[in-house]
Amino acid sequence: MIKKRTDLAVEAREIWRESVGETTQLEGVEAREKESFGLKVEIVKILDEKGEQSLGKPKGTYITITLPDEHEEDAFDNACFALSSELRELISDSGKEQILVVGLGNRYITPDNLGPNTLRHTMVTRHLVERVKEYFGNFRPVSTLEAGVLANTGVESAEMVRALCEKVQPSAVIVIDALASRRLSRVCTTIQVADTGIVPGSGVGNSRAEISMNTLGVPVIAIGVPTVVDAGTLTADLMESAGMGNPDPEKFMSVGGNLIVTPRDIDEKIAELAKIIGYSINLALQENMTIQDVTAFLS
Amino acid sequence: MIKKRTDLAVEAREIWRESVGETTQLEGVEAREKESFGLKVEIVKILDEKGEQSLGKPKGTYITITLPDEHEEDAFDNACFALSSELRELISDSGKEQILVVGLGNRYITPDNLGPNTLRHTMVTRHLVERVKEYFGNFRPVSTLEAGVLANTGVESAEMVRALCEKVQPSAVIVIDALASRRLSRVCTTIQVADTGIVPGSGVGNSRAEISMNTLGVPVIAIGVPTVVDAGTLTADLMESAGMGNPDPEKFMSVGGNLIVTPRDIDEKIAELAKIIGYSINLALQENMTIQDVTAFLS
Amino acid sequence: MIKKRTDLAVEAREIWRESVGETTQLEGVEAREKESFGLKVEIVKILDEKGEQSLGKPKGTYITITLPDEHEEDAFDNACFALSSELRELISDSGKEQILVVGLGNRYITPDNLGPNTLRHTMVTRHLVERVKEYFGNFRPVSTLEAGVLANTGVESAEMVRALCEKVQPSAVIVIDALASRRLSRVCTTIQVADTGIVPGSGVGNSRAEISMNTLGVPVIAIGVPTVVDAGTLTADLMESAGMGNPDPEKFMSVGGNLIVTPRDIDEKIAELAKIIGYSINLALQENMTIQDVTAFLS
Amino acid sequence: MIKKRTDLAVEAREIWRESVGETTQLEGVEAREKESFGLKVEIVKILDEKGEQSLGKPKGTYITITLPDEHEEDAFDNACFALSSELRELISDSGKEQILVVGLGNRYITPDNLGPNTLRHTMVTRHLVERVKEYFGNFRPVSTLEAGVLANTGVESAEMVRALCEKVQPSAVIVIDALASRRLSRVCTTIQVADTGIVPGSGVGNSRAEISMNTLGVPVIAIGVPTVVDAGTLTADLMESAGMGNPDPEKFMSVGGNLIVTPRDIDEKIAELAKIIGYSINLALQENMTIQDVTAFLS
Repeated sequence: MIKKRTDLAVEAREIWRESVGETTQLEGVEAREKESFGLKVEIVKILDEKGEQSLGKPKGTYITITLPDEHEEDAFDNACFALSSELRELISDSGKEQILVVGLGNRYITPDNLGPNTLRHTMVTRHLVERVKEYFGNFRPVSTLEAGVLANTGVESAEMVRALCEKVQPSAVIVIDALASRRLSRVCTTIQVADTGIVPGSGVGNSRAEISMNTLGVPVIAIGVPTVVDAGTLTADLMESAGMGNPDPEKFMSVGGNLIVTPRDIDEKIAELAKIIGYSINLALQENMTIQDVTAFLS
Repeated sequence: MIKKRTDLAVEAREIWRESVGETTQLEGVEAREKESFGLKVEIVKILDEKGEQSLGKPKGTYITITLPDEHEEDAFDNACFALSSELRELISDSGKEQILVVGLGNRYITPDNLGPNTLRHTMVTRHLVERVKEYFGNFRPVSTLEAGVLANTGVESAEMVRALCEKVQPSAVIVIDALASRRLSRVCTTIQVADTGIVPGSGVGNSRAEISMNTLGVPVIAIGVPTVVDAGTLTADLMESAGMGNPDPEKFMSVGGNLIVTPRDIDEKIAELAKIIGYSINLALQENMTIQDVTAFLS
Repeated sequence: MIKKRTDLAVEAREIWRESVGETTQLEGVEAREKESFGLKVEIVKILDEKGEQSLGKPKGTYITITLPDEHEEDAFDNACFALSSELRELISDSGKEQILVVGLGNRYITPDNLGPNTLRHTMVTRHLVERVKEYFGNFRPVSTLEAGVLANTGVESAEMVRALCEKVQPSAVIVIDALASRRLSRVCTTIQVADTGIVPGSGVGNSRAEISMNTLGVPVIAIGVPTVVDAGTLTADLMESAGMGNPDPEKFMSVGGNLIVTPRDIDEKIAELAKIIGYSINLALQENMTIQDVTAFLS
Repeated sequence: MIKKRTDLAVEAREIWRESVGETTQLEGVEAREKESFGLKVEIVKILDEKGEQSLGKPKGTYITITLPDEHEEDAFDNACFALSSELRELISDSGKEQILVVGLGNRYITPDNLGPNTLRHTMVTRHLVERVKEYFGNFRPVSTLEAGVLANTGVESAEMVRALCEKVQPSAVIVIDALASRRLSRVCTTIQVADTGIVPGSGVGNSRAEISMNTLGVPVIAIGVPTVVDAGTLTADLMESAGMGNPDPEKFMSVGGNLIVTPRDIDEKIAELAKIIGYSINLALQENMTIQDVTAFLS
């Protein structure tokens, strides 16, 4: 099997199709596309074990939003509306249940800093709803956790999330993480939302324990953005795009292809993406909020 | 009673003495002084409820180390040796028990950033001891937690510490926190170590729940450095030092005395203090380590 | 003479009045007050040498704006409108002349970081006006300089400013700097604008060479915010406010009063102030800009 | 001609050899290799116009040091000794002449942040030699400039350097800059030192004006580290290394190959490299300094 590292379901599907030929039917998988606030939204549903095996990902719904160019008019607003609308659908509870928002990743490594950074744009209300009921009684209680990374804490992030979940008992968890892509062109330009939580196996290789309904007992929504690609996969991608066949990235691993790279302007891109995701979470979780309301609350 | 905000036991004792006169015997409290690596070390023991009431602090041992001027030769080394030696005595276990080091405080407010900053200088070994036994089998397992603050997480730091303690089951906890002092001259120049954990009540006023043997079931050592002083207390302090009596800081509260201030060069001072405390923790927790070994491990 | 350290003309005037009694006429100085966008604006004009001597500041116009509480509605907008309106008046040229905006201060010391921080919110257009005339031909050319501090560069900031001025030949210079105040209550709550440039002498003591029409040959507008106060002056201020006389701060210098302090939440306050000043400069320098236009340009 | 973007002379030579075949004599260029403190040091001398044309770089000496793996024993020390030894040779003056050290690049883009970061490790002595002669009379006067980038300042960095040079009149200038490489394996692992200054043309494409003896009137030593590679060049590099021919990177430009990438852990690498370069400059410029002395001076 061709080994192109990806955390994106749309790419896993692409890769599968390439490997078997366009005409074969991919069983156990449903895919469709739609437009939302001018953005392309692709939905891949993995329905059963057959689908799981073909795509190497657990059963569930994977939504991929392609971001507009940041210089397009209303790029930020449209990205927030499209993402929050998908999130709202996945959460779909009474609107007052408690949510825990978890930022994964290493805050000291820029392309891994998406999760911690997003928390800076997340409206934290759990303590306010409890203590200042007269003003915040109508808000949904939201708490956050920067889970840290094993090398810095000595504790698996999944362990940390479980620990806090048992204490605060949220009705659902949202985790934000940086992902790996097979295509440089998708890096920092797509957001994947999945209702499966995070199940190690695919992706950057740095296998972490699972963060999911299985391990937490409540629904886990994962929001991820590809921020890196390994050099071997990148090479295979560009060769393919240039019409030079469809080589196996493994070929390049022994000659430097295992080095993981990120765009030069990653600082800026992470800053923009973290803001989009944070705002979208707020719009999805709190009722009748506008982007201006969020800005006012956060400042 | 005179209300001078302080988190330091040596200052609570001073204040008590001032309020009752030098001749009165302070029951339930023992105090002595020694020198260690050229540094002044003051030890206040609160022995019983009488002592607790007089000083407004829980029973336990409070050690205050006065730091040398940073430009003195070997200032950094001596500070580390003196502090680690006190820590080692308070821990005094077999040397291989697991420890959790907790940084309290808001990472985005410089004078409150001591705890988070210290974690950057703490050797994290829990995962290494488990996974790379051949190299790290002789290390003591250490994990860390940046507990965050309520406004940013929606979760009390004490709640967060309890949650993680239940999961990782350390044999003891070390918490680092920024404190308030009554005297500007002690700000950033003294380190207090106590075996009482953190029990809200005195201090900056921002009452947090308790982090102690009571609530965690294991010994809790608190390391604190005064980094702030309220303007009213500062005014009373300078008036007293200038021989202008011993006014009640409350007098200044309505005219701006409740504003909390910190030295202008606090960024630099916190950086230096965090390094001293982190290194001291490493020297105390890991056997046969030199300062050079710590530097090598951390880099 | 009473030595209360201040960089603010309104305070120098206050101090003078206190020292001589309310009834005496302050010759060579004109003072008035107005309201602008709901904010108090005080204008002190030093008219001649007599005024210079009384207030210890060079001839010129000093405008002090008292900021609204940041939680007040439209606090940010009103602060920007009030400040930009004063700036526009002081500049009052054809609107297309080149301006150099200089941030003074040490970027690694939070309360000194106002100048460098403001530059992040300043629209830099000099290269665009030159190179992308079709889009930016109507903008005023603006360049910026972070002048650094002697300890970090080995070069006086005034020397650095002169060097760049000779190269880029602006028609006027705006310098932003952090100041010292006599009153804690003014720290981070007032903005002083002066058409005198920066002439060392008063202030934090760290005497820098002059940055003014004298030394640069073009008008220099100085924007300053008090971010620190020395402990002795603070003590004298609170004693006075509490009705305990009007002591000389010198009294406290030998007992710690020379320590310079800043509010505990200075990080946040500098961030907010830098944004207000940056936006105000943009509104003043570029024609027909709204706050939204500035945000769009900068993002 | 094959267009592989590189700022390194050793790579320009490689590329030339590949394009013409191993046997052809490269006229006007001398190359040799040596070992220094265990590190490989390659020296390419471009002797005349023929050499200039073949390699697309100005006449001069280009020294490339390959860094040891950072986990090797004494890696940091050896890197500093090797680099400082080359620098000392290039400077070779009386040892007391004034030097200006310039950090180029955008401090807010991590892979471009090498120059600004290096200045933090550079001993700044110009003001001390002047003002505290009794202690620093034996030091060489060194000043620094963070030149900024056009987009943030509106002023070309070359213009800024010229402005300051005219004021402080150094006897030589050292500029530090981030470079582009053709090979991912050289990114962050090699340091190039050249006595040619910086002459735009090759490299990242973002053509800046020249910083050289030509424009400043004094010798300019350029220290550069490749921190980025464009995706097309990377692809061609890995294909070649994997034995898949030697394709022209231009082929990939239209399909994403013009995206510039950097290693995922660039934050950490830049921090390490900046320290090596800063320390090496200090060892080269100041007499009889040890690494410990530098650490003591800087802290």
